[in-house]
Amino acid sequence: MTKLNTNDTICALATPPGSSAIAVLRVSGKDSFKVSGKIFTAKKKGFNIREAETHTLHYGSIGTKDQIIDDILLSIFRKPHSYTGEDAVEISCHGSAFIVQQILTLLLDAGCRMAQPGEFTLRAFLNGKLDLSQAEGVGDLIAANSKASHKLALDQMRGGFSKMISGLREQLMQFASLIELELDFSEEDVEFADRNALKKLLEEIRSEVQQLHDSFAEGNVMKSGVPVAIIGKPNVGKSTLLNAILNEERAIVSDIPGTTRDAIEDTIVINGLAFRFIDTAGLRETGDRIETLGIERTYEKIRQARIILYLFDITSTDCMEVKESLEEFKRQLGEEGMKDKHFILIANKIDRLVKIPRHFRNMVEFECIFVSAKRKENISMITESLVKAISMDQAEEGVIVSNARHHEALSAVLEALNDIDEGFKKDIPSDLIAIDIRKALYHLGEITGEISNDDLLGNIFSRFCIGK
Amino acid sequence: MTKLNTNDTICALATPPGSSAIAVLRVSGKDSFKVSGKIFTAKKKGFNIREAETHTLHYGSIGTKDQIIDDILLSIFRKPHSYTGEDAVEISCHGSAFIVQQILTLLLDAGCRMAQPGEFTLRAFLNGKLDLSQAEGVGDLIAANSKASHKLALDQMRGGFSKMISGLREQLMQFASLIELELDFSEEDVEFADRNALKKLLEEIRSEVQQLHDSFAEGNVMKSGVPVAIIGKPNVGKSTLLNAILNEERAIVSDIPGTTRDAIEDTIVINGLAFRFIDTAGLRETGDRIETLGIERTYEKIRQARIILYLFDITSTDCMEVKESLEEFKRQLGEEGMKDKHFILIANKIDRLVKIPRHFRNMVEFECIFVSAKRKENISMITESLVKAISMDQAEEGVIVSNARHHEALSAVLEALNDIDEGFKKDIPSDLIAIDIRKALYHLGEITGEISNDDLLGNIFSRFCIGK
Repeated sequence: MTKLNTNDTICALATPPGSSAIAVLRVSGKDSFKVSGKIFTAKKKGFNIREAETHTLHYGSIGTKDQIIDDILLSIFRKPHSYTGEDAVEISCHGSAFIVQQILTLLLDAGCRMAQPGEFTLRAFLNGKLDLSQAEGVGDLIAANSKASHKLALDQMRGGFSKMISGLREQLMQFASLIELELDFSEEDVEFADRNALKKLLEEIRSEVQQLHDSFAEGNVMKSGVPVAIIGKPNVGKSTLLNAILNEERAIVSDIPGTTRDAIEDTIVINGLAFRFIDTAGLRETGDRIETLGIERTYEKIRQARIILYLFDITSTDCMEVKESLEEFKRQLGEEGMKDKHFILIANKIDRLVKIPRHFRNMVEFECIFVSAKRKENISMITESLVKAISMDQAEEGVIVSNARHHEALSAVLEALNDIDEGFKKDIPSDLIAIDIRKALYHLGEITGEISNDDLLGNIFSRFCIGK
Repeated sequence: MTKLNTNDTICALATPPGSSAIAVLRVSGKDSFKVSGKIFTAKKKGFNIREAETHTLHYGSIGTKDQIIDDILLSIFRKPHSYTGEDAVEISCHGSAFIVQQILTLLLDAGCRMAQPGEFTLRAFLNGKLDLSQAEGVGDLIAANSKASHKLALDQMRGGFSKMISGLREQLMQFASLIELELDFSEEDVEFADRNALKKLLEEIRSEVQQLHDSFAEGNVMKSGVPVAIIGKPNVGKSTLLNAILNEERAIVSDIPGTTRDAIEDTIVINGLAFRFIDTAGLRETGDRIETLGIERTYEKIRQARIILYLFDITSTDCMEVKESLEEFKRQLGEEGMKDKHFILIANKIDRLVKIPRHFRNMVEFECIFVSAKRKENISMITESLVKAISMDQAEEGVIVSNARHHEALSAVLEALNDIDEGFKKDIPSDLIAIDIRKALYHLGEITGEISNDDLLGNIFSRFCIGK
């Protein structure tokens, strides 16, 4: 995004490419009606686009004098009652790539330019229809593929998070005004503000920010899925198990005709939450190649996992060996790496046994599931365990942060709040404290976009699809 | 399509699946507003869907009491002012597969059922919004991938063809009424109708039908593309040439971002007309296998071509050989097979020559183009020749038939008209002639759908996409 130029009238296809019943093109900007007026002829006599009311639909044809391209429905949105806050129209035409291309050509000839990715939402932000975190919610909403990620994104888009942030901002402002009042009279060496009340207010704010900040671990999992690693020695059947798990759930997903879910490799959705299998050792390749990946790189990947499925071959391993290699594994991972992880032991290849040896049944410490990945036996017990593991540490209701940028800003806010607290303790002059308050306000403002710059906006909106 | 049940309220995704800014769901049927009322909450206070005017848009949220799915725009279409002629709504939501699936689930729970392919257009037909040939035009329009096929489909959808057919029907009715008048008084042996005037009217009708009937050759080419065959001995470079031609044009096609043209294998569009390369001998396979395809089957395929590119290797063939094998080829094809075909001679592998031998330069009878398929030299001369060949026999303006079903019906009409003509000549009694007139009317009615049955409709509409 080079310039935030909102003088142009922009257009783009807003629906996916491909053949379908309907395709929708979007036009936004000050010349939307002028441009449409040039190429649209309403069926109804006497129609004048300049007089058409907002939120009305008009049937007619689109094209030039010489050639009609299609019969379409034109939607009228008058500023500020549009998505972008500008005058805008939507063209609903037949869903043919040829027609879409012809209409885009008409629009470009009539004075529009092609919209850049996310430019409609950028304009909505610049025109105050959405704040920045809401705009980011729009992008997340389109990408959401599970109930959990959908809920997060929808709440964010609808302003739940923004409201919380602006609440915090207000509290901080109040705090700031009290401090600055003190500042005005500082020469007289009077403390107007009740320092105790101030400390209490600060503590309240800090606690809320801390909670938001800490919710990111949860939010990230809800948004991106729970990272799961399948580990084990070569040839214990890791890739067979992964395929069995993925198939188990893919078969369950109900398929309503006409809606194909974009297949996400190595991700399954259970109970509305996505589980994302980390490729720790080329699991998707045929055969295991844990040896070929450097050991350290493998452990690095495993450290990202929230759940570890530890797989062994029950026909070639005895109970002691399992325990020993698990101990070795835990040593390698280190104490920090073990924090907040769920371990599930999985004994594979039970199809080759008549009976499961008793000593395996009594294996302690970790849950153990006995399966045959090859014959897809007991696979559902694994998926149930995945859900159980996560529901154990499900956060309570409340606003949850799922955006890394917001998390980073909250870290900076928290740091500033800690500095204020330190300042209070050390009886630092109010004017120095005021600097830290302004810092905290600045970083809160970054989240909602009161504070922003072209680079940041470019970075955020370029990730959107065209037409959004 | 089992039953033409229009009591249900149907729903479907009308835009292509996939992530995008917008997705549109369609709902049609008598309970459209009731169903929408259950799951839609307008932002504007006091909104009542039952009182909402037709062709208005309403912003609000969709979901259940417990869970909002998305913020959407709801379009209202009151019967008969909708595509289907029924009460209908369109839901414009965020373009996420997850959201689309959730909304479809809401709609099904609220009493809709999933629409079958083409069911919206079927209802439009059953409710008299479109006749059958117009409905078929809708399907063709979505599938159209060139200017020529698009124009044909659009004309058909907008009723150009239907108007012509109903004009013919009226003329035939007038003819019939005159004949039947004669019939009423036949006992008195009086000829009321002026037989000469009748003959003239018949001749007019027959000429129009004949013209329509004959336009199918042209229409089929415009709709499906001009069939082109590349033929030649093994190893002369047929597949390399095909790829060179296809790439030549694919590079030219302008790519507006956001509109990916569905790639149609072995078809290129030049000057708005599609050229479709017939796979005469596994051209797309690596290597030639003209030998492996039975000679007769190869010739059968070549007979379908309108343009034949006859390829030879200039480094290993002399002028006499080319002439001889061409003669042999023409013999094999037969006189009927040669009719209406364009031949273009192509000398390949000029990259291996320093200079083109003079005797090739003067090769008569057919145009000869000297190329290097491998180095993509002079390929544009071939594409120019393709266009030139077809523009030579471009039909004049007028209604053109492009649908095989219509062509078949017109053949039957023509047969009946010929029978009437014969009857006149043989002074056959009016009551027998009346039978043939009814036959002609019947087959005209088949085109526009005055005459139809469930099987025919099922056959036509099941080819549509879901949501159309």
